[in-house]
Amino acid sequence: MTLMTTSTTAPGLPFTKGHGTQNDFVLVPDLDGTRDLSADLVRRLADRRSGIGGDGVIRVVRTAHATEPEVQALAGQADWFMDYRNADGSVAQMCGNGTRVFAAYLAREGLETRPDFAIATRAGIKHVRTTPIGYAVNLGPWRLEDPAQAAAEGFTAVVSAAGIPDLPGLRVDLGNPHTVVVLPPDIDLADLDLSSAPVVAPVPPAGTNVEFVRAVGPGQLAMRVHERGVGETRSCGTGAVAAALAVRWWEGPSQDTAVWTVDVPGGRLTVTVESDETVELAGPAALVADGIFTD
Amino acid sequence: MTLMTTSTTAPGLPFTKGHGTQNDFVLVPDLDGTRDLSADLVRRLADRRSGIGGDGVIRVVRTAHATEPEVQALAGQADWFMDYRNADGSVAQMCGNGTRVFAAYLAREGLETRPDFAIATRAGIKHVRTTPIGYAVNLGPWRLEDPAQAAAEGFTAVVSAAGIPDLPGLRVDLGNPHTVVVLPPDIDLADLDLSSAPVVAPVPPAGTNVEFVRAVGPGQLAMRVHERGVGETRSCGTGAVAAALAVRWWEGPSQDTAVWTVDVPGGRLTVTVESDETVELAGPAALVADGIFTD
Repeated sequence: MTLMTTSTTAPGLPFTKGHGTQNDFVLVPDLDGTRDLSADLVRRLADRRSGIGGDGVIRVVRTAHATEPEVQALAGQADWFMDYRNADGSVAQMCGNGTRVFAAYLAREGLETRPDFAIATRAGIKHVRTTPIGYAVNLGPWRLEDPAQAAAEGFTAVVSAAGIPDLPGLRVDLGNPHTVVVLPPDIDLADLDLSSAPVVAPVPPAGTNVEFVRAVGPGQLAMRVHERGVGETRSCGTGAVAAALAVRWWEGPSQDTAVWTVDVPGGRLTVTVESDETVELAGPAALVADGIFTD
Repeated sequence: MTLMTTSTTAPGLPFTKGHGTQNDFVLVPDLDGTRDLSADLVRRLADRRSGIGGDGVIRVVRTAHATEPEVQALAGQADWFMDYRNADGSVAQMCGNGTRVFAAYLAREGLETRPDFAIATRAGIKHVRTTPIGYAVNLGPWRLEDPAQAAAEGFTAVVSAAGIPDLPGLRVDLGNPHTVVVLPPDIDLADLDLSSAPVVAPVPPAGTNVEFVRAVGPGQLAMRVHERGVGETRSCGTGAVAAALAVRWWEGPSQDTAVWTVDVPGGRLTVTVESDETVELAGPAALVADGIFTD
């Protein structure tokens, strides 16, 4: 209803569409932070039928122009802020696959010319480096939930999914909550029915993503994921990391595999466990279209 | 692999995204018919994660430049050919909601300046007229399947859907096959589970769309639809027409309602039964984005 808002969103909103292992995003360049990206506009952009369609919307803005003071304070460490919004219009901290697409956009536009650089997110500074197949992003700290119970019992949750027996799960925190299960040999990953949300006990207070994993070789996993509040997706970056961390934990301290490949329905991700505290996620990033949203 | 193909599709493919009651399409302008819109390119454009996303792809081409001789022969009757492709890359005859979006594109681009005009489709000439809320398209002939059985028994199929009793259905042909059922009063349209395809007996040789209908007032219907080979969609234009025709037939010859409103999850359609042979579908059309596909 304000003229200021109208003048920045009409007559059309430039956008770029991209994806990382088919986790897809609508990027909205707003370099100097003059756009009002309302929850309603995010929902309209992300709607797959009446809009452009995406799992999320990413506003590209100079860190110095971020509205949140705690993000603006990162301006000395990172030039660009990934302002991530979920498809439902809500504000989000971070998105693993999204960081690569964000990096690909900065590089293509010449906004970043260095092979290694930092970006600002609501979860703090993330370090990005260019790789032959895309980008690698240091996701920072990770944490096994309830390590005492995990050590004593070997699992910290029980997961019930349609048509298969209950399975022991390991809860991993990567800024967002994950529960990882390994499928028994007689159940094919392809046969899983993830059309409804798996039930996790005890019920995680903030919900959980659930990763169903098959170990296909040393340091090699295949995975399908059910994301909280979304349903099954073709890829979840932090989910791939959680899967590698959980299987690594289950395999025990005698193995020291640091690099894992994780095949998700949308492509291949690589997880590098750099220490007991930090982990890096690598994979492709594609920018597939540029346009003007006129709705 | 040919230079000719490369030269017309690289470095980017201009597109427009639009929808009619949330049945959505990627339009590709190719006015002079120089593009090779391969099945693979259609699939890549229509992919909702790694492409633009749409229920179908529509190439906009002068009828005189159509490759099919039977379409080219329509050039004297219609300037523009709606070259419709399904999201899976296959060629299709027609799409009711697509015709309105196609018409909106022609009008916006100044390719058609008349309020009423004809368009060419693989199902022949379709007449379009501008209305206050969008466009109306004459879908041409319709036909009740097996009228003798319908007259004798009141139905021509039995439809089984998840969680509800079997229901009598009426089969209607509109160039594509439909089976219409009316829900009993104790079943809410919103409660239907259409996550799997309803089973229709006898099994239609070419499959069938299935429309679940509630009569909400004189000449007023609400509907959900399961499209063959697709799943539930937010709208099906010919499905709305089939629903109106079936309910009109069930209500009997004593009523002569010619104009029906059909509310689908994606919006409101209007069906006008012009005669026992032709029917018109009207509704909104929105063009929401313009861009360049660079994948």
